[in-house]
Amino acid sequence: MIIVLKKGCKKKTVEAVIKKVKELGFKAHAIVGVERTVIGAVGDDRDKHLLSALEAVPCVEKLVPILQPYKLASKEIRREPTVVKVDGACFGGGHFGVIAGPCSVETEKQIVETAIRVKKAGARMLRGGAFKPRTSPYAFQGLEEEGLKLLAAARKESGLPFVTEVINPEDVELVGDYADALQIGARNVQNFALLRRAGKFGKPIVLKRGMSTTIQEFLMSAEYVLSEGCKNVILCERGIRTFENATRNTLDISAVPVIHERSHLPIIIDPSHATGVRNYVPPLCFAAMACGADGIMVEVHPDPQKALCDGPQSLRIEDFAALVVQLRKLSKFNGKKM
Amino acid sequence: MIIVLKKGCKKKTVEAVIKKVKELGFKAHAIVGVERTVIGAVGDDRDKHLLSALEAVPCVEKLVPILQPYKLASKEIRREPTVVKVDGACFGGGHFGVIAGPCSVETEKQIVETAIRVKKAGARMLRGGAFKPRTSPYAFQGLEEEGLKLLAAARKESGLPFVTEVINPEDVELVGDYADALQIGARNVQNFALLRRAGKFGKPIVLKRGMSTTIQEFLMSAEYVLSEGCKNVILCERGIRTFENATRNTLDISAVPVIHERSHLPIIIDPSHATGVRNYVPPLCFAAMACGADGIMVEVHPDPQKALCDGPQSLRIEDFAALVVQLRKLSKFNGKKM
Amino acid sequence: MIIVLKKGCKKKTVEAVIKKVKELGFKAHAIVGVERTVIGAVGDDRDKHLLSALEAVPCVEKLVPILQPYKLASKEIRREPTVVKVDGACFGGGHFGVIAGPCSVETEKQIVETAIRVKKAGARMLRGGAFKPRTSPYAFQGLEEEGLKLLAAARKESGLPFVTEVINPEDVELVGDYADALQIGARNVQNFALLRRAGKFGKPIVLKRGMSTTIQEFLMSAEYVLSEGCKNVILCERGIRTFENATRNTLDISAVPVIHERSHLPIIIDPSHATGVRNYVPPLCFAAMACGADGIMVEVHPDPQKALCDGPQSLRIEDFAALVVQLRKLSKFNGKKM
Amino acid sequence: MIIVLKKGCKKKTVEAVIKKVKELGFKAHAIVGVERTVIGAVGDDRDKHLLSALEAVPCVEKLVPILQPYKLASKEIRREPTVVKVDGACFGGGHFGVIAGPCSVETEKQIVETAIRVKKAGARMLRGGAFKPRTSPYAFQGLEEEGLKLLAAARKESGLPFVTEVINPEDVELVGDYADALQIGARNVQNFALLRRAGKFGKPIVLKRGMSTTIQEFLMSAEYVLSEGCKNVILCERGIRTFENATRNTLDISAVPVIHERSHLPIIIDPSHATGVRNYVPPLCFAAMACGADGIMVEVHPDPQKALCDGPQSLRIEDFAALVVQLRKLSKFNGKKM
Repeated sequence: MIIVLKKGCKKKTVEAVIKKVKELGFKAHAIVGVERTVIGAVGDDRDKHLLSALEAVPCVEKLVPILQPYKLASKEIRREPTVVKVDGACFGGGHFGVIAGPCSVETEKQIVETAIRVKKAGARMLRGGAFKPRTSPYAFQGLEEEGLKLLAAARKESGLPFVTEVINPEDVELVGDYADALQIGARNVQNFALLRRAGKFGKPIVLKRGMSTTIQEFLMSAEYVLSEGCKNVILCERGIRTFENATRNTLDISAVPVIHERSHLPIIIDPSHATGVRNYVPPLCFAAMACGADGIMVEVHPDPQKALCDGPQSLRIEDFAALVVQLRKLSKFNGKKM
Repeated sequence: MIIVLKKGCKKKTVEAVIKKVKELGFKAHAIVGVERTVIGAVGDDRDKHLLSALEAVPCVEKLVPILQPYKLASKEIRREPTVVKVDGACFGGGHFGVIAGPCSVETEKQIVETAIRVKKAGARMLRGGAFKPRTSPYAFQGLEEEGLKLLAAARKESGLPFVTEVINPEDVELVGDYADALQIGARNVQNFALLRRAGKFGKPIVLKRGMSTTIQEFLMSAEYVLSEGCKNVILCERGIRTFENATRNTLDISAVPVIHERSHLPIIIDPSHATGVRNYVPPLCFAAMACGADGIMVEVHPDPQKALCDGPQSLRIEDFAALVVQLRKLSKFNGKKM
Repeated sequence: MIIVLKKGCKKKTVEAVIKKVKELGFKAHAIVGVERTVIGAVGDDRDKHLLSALEAVPCVEKLVPILQPYKLASKEIRREPTVVKVDGACFGGGHFGVIAGPCSVETEKQIVETAIRVKKAGARMLRGGAFKPRTSPYAFQGLEEEGLKLLAAARKESGLPFVTEVINPEDVELVGDYADALQIGARNVQNFALLRRAGKFGKPIVLKRGMSTTIQEFLMSAEYVLSEGCKNVILCERGIRTFENATRNTLDISAVPVIHERSHLPIIIDPSHATGVRNYVPPLCFAAMACGADGIMVEVHPDPQKALCDGPQSLRIEDFAALVVQLRKLSKFNGKKM
Repeated sequence: MIIVLKKGCKKKTVEAVIKKVKELGFKAHAIVGVERTVIGAVGDDRDKHLLSALEAVPCVEKLVPILQPYKLASKEIRREPTVVKVDGACFGGGHFGVIAGPCSVETEKQIVETAIRVKKAGARMLRGGAFKPRTSPYAFQGLEEEGLKLLAAARKESGLPFVTEVINPEDVELVGDYADALQIGARNVQNFALLRRAGKFGKPIVLKRGMSTTIQEFLMSAEYVLSEGCKNVILCERGIRTFENATRNTLDISAVPVIHERSHLPIIIDPSHATGVRNYVPPLCFAAMACGADGIMVEVHPDPQKALCDGPQSLRIEDFAALVVQLRKLSKFNGKKM
């Protein structure tokens, strides 16, 4: 941590700050510049939040942290990539996992048919919402436990493991007992009670980035889950909120190399929610594969016009099958296993 | 709802869309333009989400909603402003409510002393966090139930009602039994399970706008609470996330006139979290009063340098007292009652 | 400047960086931390951009600048506020300047009538566009030199000085010969050729913040003008681009206290362009006055329905007159002179 | 254009608006809804800005445009993709153009060596700044005409055509006489005087998207250039400004499929300015190729540590050569010609 003092601090003030830094258990090194004095505080990083109290000291202009605040999610803890396996689906370390399915579970026929057909087309995991976070209290909120049962039926018929969203900490056990992996949605990326409970449950977690979450905050949310003992976290970039409105959100494709540089966790792309437009999904899946992402999560519906939510962004099953064929061709470029 | 068709749609296609609109229970009016045909769908607005399925129809370019999606939060339901009363504190309809207190409850001495002194200085409600949502799992997470007890003690000593944040739906009853009003924080503005549970509990709610929540979404979150039967919702603008980093967030002061135009609910300002800088708090409180806001929520700490969180943005108690004096002077401008 | 080295740098590498820093003419102080080594470079700040080459050195993780990059715009050069006077209009140092007028100059009758009536209502400067930057090449682009002549006629009839926008460096002399002050618009805030030319011309400049300009960049643009010898720069906050679309832009009201803390230059508010909605203009003008802004620039049109641009955000003249009455009442709060 | 009227408009008012719409030369169709009346205005789109005056009519709530405002840049004018050729470099219609070179021209040796070596490695066009737009007036501003001469020398030695930025309308002829293509930078994307002058000059233009320019505005800027007669415009996505700061800007990769859907113009990617970090450049180039972009523009410097600007984002020449090898391998996926 670097502590920048205000212009014109007297020597006595500088010494008082140094004393304070030392009291907090750090070593202090002052650098007297032409216009400013800065103090470097050296010590165990985990305790650096103690130093943040210094920001309220009148002569302190600002604190500049030097280290990233996450540990377990960082490469400093683990150099080699984490491979998350959910049944036959693998993410990370050269594996490109493909998750497909409808926004919402609607009927047994819909989800079972989708599961069988996306499996055949090349998907390795099924997705489908049973508990839906909806902006409007009047919109369809999902089939809840009935939806979980239908997902389990689809798994039985297709052999695909499934991931589904949990939105309430109280439902973690309920959802977790049915599902192969738990999804924590964009709106809940800083729902810390949910992160903790899901982390404790232990099943793999697909953690979606929030609309306005920085990559650092995103990794801090993963840290919450990891700190509860869960080791299998799949990060999912699904677009951030910007001024651009040609797409529903703005896919931050750079998050892939940034996260690969900072973390050992796999990072996948959800181009369906990022854009909200079906036609943009295939090119962004290709971009994801080419830049080294560890998988994709795409919305597929047997009849998008009848979907109860997010129809315009859902691929038809035949489109999805064509997409997988293209992705397999593309995977030769970097040797990703699908 | 206006349905815009793609260029070059044939008459037969247009008729098929019209048929679909009618099947969904709406009247359809087509307007044939030089380059595009648009169809107006007329009917009960609550069911308009049914129409959204049309977005997945290939010849449909886009849907343009005409009405706002919220009802109970809107002025169309209730023209006169809602006045929320929490014990002696009033918000809305000419009342300017002042909430003050520390970011976190730390010790009995700290919270009791703060309560007594901010009451004397002019605050009408105490704030203080017992359950703290923190970006890092390693940061101070609050005193939890012990904190609630200290807040209750501070109320007893000072006579001030208090508001405190609830972050887990399971804790609504626990927190609600102690508190006079429940705060739902920025990170939980779309935690729909929490909104529902808090709305059912029935005590007044201070709902903070999320960092990347539009005003429309913010009002939809209020709609969740209202639709559960709670009538006393205080909206709180606390800054949105933008590219500017001179302040922690960007205070969207325009939210005050926008919300006053659209909703009957009171809207207050939290300049402490919006800026993260103590010196910017008083001018923004003056701006809030002058533009017609219904109150403020400010962080005050007896010793900001020792605060366990957010010290740099906390006012000292004497600064707060001076601020209230100024606000009273300013309130003569528009007759707000403090 | 603080130079943060990557984890695990060897002593030899650290010494090589220190050598480089010294070669560039700075003193170097190394602080060896538990996980990182950082180097403080001490020397004349003006040359610090030399150090930026260090960012490309493999063992350097990042550079952290300590000082603001602007000089002439900063309070370190000049503590007391600059008062910009344009004829009878004053901005800064306790003066609250009121600029009013139409988006575009349209006809002699329109601009002369507006000038006379806004003067009577309390404006101290007239605004009106002769050269209009328009997003579409097919939209009305302004009356150009003819517009300047009409503005001069309006000045003669009303006695009000006027400010008008210049968008092309080649036109600085032409516009400057007619106008009392030059406006540099939001889209040109980093048009450095224009900034330089306008700065050389010497007349007072109203510099609008760009839609995505940080406050630091905004002050750097002012620095361009000041570095050419012009001393009279009025900064104008007119809204930044964010995700919120209830208003055309998001007025960053916090820019007022931030700029007052960092710079001696006056900062005024343009609520018309910030919101794009007439009804939101008065409350934001009140906010501007209350939080200490040095003036406002508002769009006023004798017949907004017939305005060739920006009609919806223009006040009618009678609304403007009522606004000034209110502002005068409000000015008693902080003693601003109008 | 759809005109939405306010709630509770009387029949007489509706008729008055219809009359006004007709006076402006459009046909008017009213749709009376349950809560709102909307009016469709049908007519020649080019004149629709006339209708914008209606927004100032008190009973009008808002105007909803149906068509995109650009014509010449749109696919409605030209279905097949435009191929821009600059000497041997081709962009669009299956061609993937590679532009490489340093941020700034510094010395003859630097630019000639870079040109020869990037040509050998596979670049088809050279880039290099002679006139540099810099945030600080104290930073290196480029070699100006001397830089143009060095670029011409590099062209002569290497055989590569070059593109360089022009920042002042007055310099269009000067720069254009030397250069093979003119670059208009992000900060000047709405410098309409510059767009017009460059469009008139006639040489191909590389138009960079602004930091906060929507795709629609970006295409409107292209429309300015096209409307002056220039047909060869290469659009360049170089990152937009968002809250994320792990990268300098956020590369909006979705702009590639969005622009391909809306426009016939080629769209290339500049990952160097988008991220500001060398290591992120190759993965983003792969993403660009895979999602169908028409080329890339990358910063390459023979010795990034000595670069006078943007060293940290510049590739070494050997890195660039390796990148091109990879891109050629990847191009087999979609058959792009490099």
